[in-house]
Amino acid sequence: MAEHFADRLLAAIGRVGSPVCVGIDPAYDRLPDELKNGDEVAAIEAFGLGIVEAVAGRVPAVKPQIAYFERYGSAGVAAYEKVVTAAQKAGLIVIGDVKRGDIGSTASAYADGHLLGENAPDAITVNGYFGADGLKPFVDTAADTGKGIFVLVRTSNPSAAAIQDFADAVGKKFYEHIAEQVAKIGSDERLIGGSGYSCVGAVVGATYPDEARRLREIMPQQIFLVPGYGAQGASADDCAASFKADGTGAIVNASRSVIYAFQNPEYAGMDWKKTIETAAKKFADDIRQSVEENR
Amino acid sequence: MAEHFADRLLAAIGRVGSPVCVGIDPAYDRLPDELKNGDEVAAIEAFGLGIVEAVAGRVPAVKPQIAYFERYGSAGVAAYEKVVTAAQKAGLIVIGDVKRGDIGSTASAYADGHLLGENAPDAITVNGYFGADGLKPFVDTAADTGKGIFVLVRTSNPSAAAIQDFADAVGKKFYEHIAEQVAKIGSDERLIGGSGYSCVGAVVGATYPDEARRLREIMPQQIFLVPGYGAQGASADDCAASFKADGTGAIVNASRSVIYAFQNPEYAGMDWKKTIETAAKKFADDIRQSVEENR
Repeated sequence: MAEHFADRLLAAIGRVGSPVCVGIDPAYDRLPDELKNGDEVAAIEAFGLGIVEAVAGRVPAVKPQIAYFERYGSAGVAAYEKVVTAAQKAGLIVIGDVKRGDIGSTASAYADGHLLGENAPDAITVNGYFGADGLKPFVDTAADTGKGIFVLVRTSNPSAAAIQDFADAVGKKFYEHIAEQVAKIGSDERLIGGSGYSCVGAVVGATYPDEARRLREIMPQQIFLVPGYGAQGASADDCAASFKADGTGAIVNASRSVIYAFQNPEYAGMDWKKTIETAAKKFADDIRQSVEENR
Repeated sequence: MAEHFADRLLAAIGRVGSPVCVGIDPAYDRLPDELKNGDEVAAIEAFGLGIVEAVAGRVPAVKPQIAYFERYGSAGVAAYEKVVTAAQKAGLIVIGDVKRGDIGSTASAYADGHLLGENAPDAITVNGYFGADGLKPFVDTAADTGKGIFVLVRTSNPSAAAIQDFADAVGKKFYEHIAEQVAKIGSDERLIGGSGYSCVGAVVGATYPDEARRLREIMPQQIFLVPGYGAQGASADDCAASFKADGTGAIVNASRSVIYAFQNPEYAGMDWKKTIETAAKKFADDIRQSVEENR
């Protein structure tokens, strides 16, 4: 039986000293010139591998976004697999950002594809719109293999509110309803690790800190995966709202602000991998400091 | 400029005479014995190609479910691409059942991967949880290329209600809220074809016919993709609720009840492709008759 996902993640955070994750979202147009040789799949793969090399040991986790690979069909998915494997070999926790979700029989196929097998990610993001029976195959597979899932609760994008703020007669919002379901599904004893956290976590956007504090109360056993820092506009203090008083319970993701740091005039003339390493370190320090100050 | 998706779909339905779609959901364990030679990816590909051969000319559309291919990683996705290409060559409308959804920048990558390019499906299913800005790249790409999208509104699985029936102070349910957003987004003049239907459609499960009638009112310009017939428990009459009075406006999907028909004792001794052809024809006749009777 593999060690529990939450325990592995917390240990990795403890080793590095900061609860952060770097998103691997490679868009060909934005890559360093030296990688743009016309073979787009080879270039995004090289960029993904370069990010892994630059951040290993500096951050506990990476989050490859499969969409940027899937844009190139099966050849791109093969590149995604190589980046996931390299990240695991480098000792990083890998969160596959795939946001899959479907009815139970179909969700089983997704769970097999994305959580099973030697080179599968340690965790994936999933969409909870199908409810409990659609989540069950992901939950069961994660529980059986020491893996984790993060269910979309509150997303970080501008139009999220128009959908997710839909409220019932007593003012409860839809994303809070989803959060209650996640808390309930994730509270089963078999899903809880030695750390007290569940292998069923939640995605909670950093761009709404007041809501994050409320969701922290609804989901005491969930680790929050927090997107929205940097390019999407959230500050380190905004992100701190997703943590418990003891400074645990969340991992903050930054993608564009770290991986495209070489475009920042501040880093002019520096090797692109070195800029990513530097930006990742700065990001980790920024979050560490805010979490400390908010304890 | 390619012909509008809704117009192409309606023309294909008209040629065949029944608004049905066969789902391609190949699970290795359930395949005909003669295909189970140990190479699972080759077997599901052969089964997918066999379904295409069996149903071409008998139904207007097929819906390959990418999860059953993605279970095998990039090699499985390559098989999915071959099945999609074969279906298009056979003159079928192809609806890629991928249920993707993310923030705008990421959704753009998904839209490129699943709707652009010579061999991309004619339409895909998408998840609307991110709201308008997450849908926009899919809508824009569909509009520009004569493709379509079907946004998840009401799913056909047992636990859908616990999530999607969440209601506001006046009793409006969450899936109706999503339906209103889909109707609004899809009503833009540039998205409407000569048939009066939008390239932005909706997924509406057949297992809840009363709700389908209400959703038909909320979304007059949407074509409904209706899963749930057969293995999931909905009858042809249940499905008829998703159509307009003139008998247009929906396409009913059946997957397991058609593609695994060879396991039905009724068809014992018949070649597996012939059983699929026979079951597809029976399904098409069943839906045609119910839609006629409900006009």
